[in-house]
Amino acid sequence: MESPSIKIAIIGAGTVGAALVAMLNDHTRDAALHEAVGGTLKIAGIAVRDIKRPRSGVAPELLTTDVEALVTRDDVDVVVELAGGVDDAYRYVRRALESGKSVVTANKALIAAKGTELEAIARTQNVDLIFEAAVGGGIPILRALRTSLVGEKIHRVMGIVNGTTNFILSAMTSDGASYDDVLAEAQRLGYAEADPTADVEGFDAAAKVTILAALSFGTPLVGAVIPREGISRITADDVAFASRHGYVIKLIGVAERVGEHGISMRVHPAMLPTSHPLASINGAFNAVFVEGAKAGPLMLMGRGAGGDPTASAVLGDILEAARNRVVSRRSATPDVEENLTDFPQSELQSTFYLTLDVADRPGVLAAVTTVFGDHGVSIRLMEQSGFGDEARLTFVTHFALESDMAATIEDLQTLDVVDAIGSTIRIVGEDS
Amino acid sequence: MESPSIKIAIIGAGTVGAALVAMLNDHTRDAALHEAVGGTLKIAGIAVRDIKRPRSGVAPELLTTDVEALVTRDDVDVVVELAGGVDDAYRYVRRALESGKSVVTANKALIAAKGTELEAIARTQNVDLIFEAAVGGGIPILRALRTSLVGEKIHRVMGIVNGTTNFILSAMTSDGASYDDVLAEAQRLGYAEADPTADVEGFDAAAKVTILAALSFGTPLVGAVIPREGISRITADDVAFASRHGYVIKLIGVAERVGEHGISMRVHPAMLPTSHPLASINGAFNAVFVEGAKAGPLMLMGRGAGGDPTASAVLGDILEAARNRVVSRRSATPDVEENLTDFPQSELQSTFYLTLDVADRPGVLAAVTTVFGDHGVSIRLMEQSGFGDEARLTFVTHFALESDMAATIEDLQTLDVVDAIGSTIRIVGEDS
Repeated sequence: MESPSIKIAIIGAGTVGAALVAMLNDHTRDAALHEAVGGTLKIAGIAVRDIKRPRSGVAPELLTTDVEALVTRDDVDVVVELAGGVDDAYRYVRRALESGKSVVTANKALIAAKGTELEAIARTQNVDLIFEAAVGGGIPILRALRTSLVGEKIHRVMGIVNGTTNFILSAMTSDGASYDDVLAEAQRLGYAEADPTADVEGFDAAAKVTILAALSFGTPLVGAVIPREGISRITADDVAFASRHGYVIKLIGVAERVGEHGISMRVHPAMLPTSHPLASINGAFNAVFVEGAKAGPLMLMGRGAGGDPTASAVLGDILEAARNRVVSRRSATPDVEENLTDFPQSELQSTFYLTLDVADRPGVLAAVTTVFGDHGVSIRLMEQSGFGDEARLTFVTHFALESDMAATIEDLQTLDVVDAIGSTIRIVGEDS
Repeated sequence: MESPSIKIAIIGAGTVGAALVAMLNDHTRDAALHEAVGGTLKIAGIAVRDIKRPRSGVAPELLTTDVEALVTRDDVDVVVELAGGVDDAYRYVRRALESGKSVVTANKALIAAKGTELEAIARTQNVDLIFEAAVGGGIPILRALRTSLVGEKIHRVMGIVNGTTNFILSAMTSDGASYDDVLAEAQRLGYAEADPTADVEGFDAAAKVTILAALSFGTPLVGAVIPREGISRITADDVAFASRHGYVIKLIGVAERVGEHGISMRVHPAMLPTSHPLASINGAFNAVFVEGAKAGPLMLMGRGAGGDPTASAVLGDILEAARNRVVSRRSATPDVEENLTDFPQSELQSTFYLTLDVADRPGVLAAVTTVFGDHGVSIRLMEQSGFGDEARLTFVTHFALESDMAATIEDLQTLDVVDAIGSTIRIVGEDS
C-alpha cells in the first residue's frame, strides 16, 4: 500500500515554530499521526530571517530566507504561517492559498483583519485555512465550534482569552497589589510586553472575539471595531470590593445574539460571581464559555499561549489539513450570514459597579443620587468610605440601559462635588 | 449542482431520540448543516417499541417496530442507536455495520463492552462508528481526543463523568446532609434510579474511563474490569472534614500512563483541593481534565446527561458520519496499541484520608499508629473527635503505596481497639 507524503512548509522558527518542529521530529507519535492523516508528514522547508543562526534539531538544508519561493514550491502541501504581524503574513498566506496550498496559522491579528478575504480565496482554491491556535492557544474551541457544535444554535460565547490581563488581574486579586506594580512584575517575568497596550487595552481580546463570533454566528471575519475597554483603570480598591461582595474581576470578551438578527460583541472588565465557571480561571489560563440552545453551557479551559500549547494546536490543524489533502477535500467553514446586524451597545442592559471620588459634605449624596434618578438608573447598593477630601462613593446599580448609564456618568462629571469618576465595571453572570 | 441526501435511521424515541428528532426538524440551522455535510439530512425511519403511541412532531409513517429491516434498508446511510442496553443494541449495531451503514451511538455500556469488536467491523466495512455522547453528554471531549489532540502524548485523563454521583456529593457538600437523605432526594427528583448501583458504585464511570483510555492511549475498547470504588460509604463527617481542610469530595475516573507502557485506570472518590479546576464542577455537570505533554492541562466542562445535551452530541456525530458518506471516507480512529499493560493499582502511590472508630482508652493511638508504622505508612495529620465509645480517629497519610495502605487497613481490622474502619478516600491533585 502506498502511503502519501504530505509536505509542510513553515514560516517562522521562533518559540512556536521551534516547538512545532520538535513535535514533528518526535517519532513516538508517528503511528498515531499516520493513522490520523492516512499518510506521513514531512517538513519541506522552514523560512527564517537569519539563516546563519544555529538551531538545534533543524537540518540546515531545510532553512531558507526566500518565503515566497518556499510557499509556492510545487511539492509543498500545507503552509504553516508563524511569522506574526499582518502585512507580510497576509502576503505570504495569500500567495500560498493562490498556489493551491492549505494554510495553518496561529495569527489572530491576520485572521481578524483579513480572514474573510483569505477564506474566500481558500474556498475558491478548494484548500483549507485553519487557525485553531488563534484563539485560546492550546484549547480546541474553534474546532468544537466548527464540528461538534455546528448543529447547535449558539446564544452566547464569553471568554477569558487574554493571558496577560488574566495574569495581572489574578495577581491583583491574590496579592491585593496595585495594577502598576503587578504590570511591572508581569513585564519583568516576560508575561507582558514592554508596550502592553495590545493586551491591557483589550485589542488582542477583541480580535479573538471577532473570530469566535464568526465561527459561532457567521459574522464576517474582518476587523470589526468592537466596543472595547481595558483593565488599566482597575484599582486595588475595585478588586477588594469585588472580593468582599463575592465577585472576581476578569477581562471578558463576549459575542452574543440579541433578538433574531442582532449580534453584540464587546470586550470589557467584568465582575463575575465566584461561583461562575469562568471565575476560577486564573493566571495564564484561558477559557471559553459557550451557551448553546441544546448543548447547554459548555466551557473549555487550557493554556492560552506559550510555544508548546500553541504548537500543539497548530499540529492538530496540520493533521486536519493533511488528511484533507490525502482525500482531496477541505473542511467545512461557516458561511457568512448576510442578515446579521451589529446590535448597538447603548441598547444593552447591564448591572454596573461605579466609584466616585467626592467632597464629603452635606448634600453630596442627594446631588449624586438625583443624577442617577434623572436617568432612570436605580441603585442596588451604596458604600461610602474615607472622609473629607478623600471621600469615595461606591455604587452598584440594578439593571440599566448602557445609554442611561453613559448619560448618568456624563452628568456626574459636571457636578461640582464630584472630583473624579473611577472605574465602571459591569457585573456579569448573575442568575443567567 | 446536485446535493446528496443522507438518510438517517433512528433506533429509539425516548428522551434523547425525541430531542434529536426535534433538532433535525428545526430548520433554522439547515444552511449550516448543509454546509457542514455537503448534503441534506433526512430521517428515513424511527424504530420504536410501541408504534401506536402518539408522538408530537413525528410523521407516523416514519415509525416501525422492525429494527432489523430498518437498519439494513438499502437507502439508509447512518444508523443512530439510542435503544440502550447491551445485547439488543449490540445485535442492531452489528447488523447495521455489516450492512455498510455508519453508526452513531450514545451507549457507553455497549461501547465499553463490545467496542473493539464493533470498531473492527466498522474498519472492515470502511464505515464510521462514532460515540461522542457516550462520555460526558454534550461535552465534545472524545472528538477533541480524536482530532485536536491526536498528535499529543497524553499523560493523564481525569474526569467527573457521572452526573448522579456529582449531584449527590455536591448536595452533601452544600447542605451538610447525609448520603442516604440526599440519595432519596435525588431519586425523588429523577436524578437517581430506583436501583442506583450503576451510578453510585462507579460502574457507569468505569465504562466511561474505558472509552476515554481507548481514545487517549489506544487501550482496547473492551469491558476491562477496572478497580472501582463508589460513594455509598461517604459520610457527612467526611464531607465536613474535606471542607475544613480545603478539599471537596468528588467521584473521579482516571486513566493515566505509568512508565513507558503501563496504563492505570480506576474509579474512586477523591478529595480534590478547592483550587483544582475539577473541584468547582457541581451538580449534574461533568468535566474531563486532560494532561498532555505539549498542550498542557485542558479541561472541558458541560452537561453530562439529559435529552437535549445528549441529542446535541449525537447530532454532531451524525454530521461527521454524514459528511464522511458524502466524500466516501471514514474518520480516523486510534489503533489498539499492542504493548500496553495494566499497571497494578497496588503499585501506585497516593495520599490517603482514613477514619477509624475506636475505643477511647489509653494506648489506642499507640496501637493504631504502630500498625501504620509497621507498613511504612507515615502520617501527615491526625484528628481525634468524640470520646468514650464514640471516639473517632481521622488520619491523612503522606504518599504511600496502595499495597502498604491495604495491608495497614487489613491489620487495623484485627485490632481489638478498632470498632470500625470508615471511609478511605484518596487525596488527588495536590502539587501535581
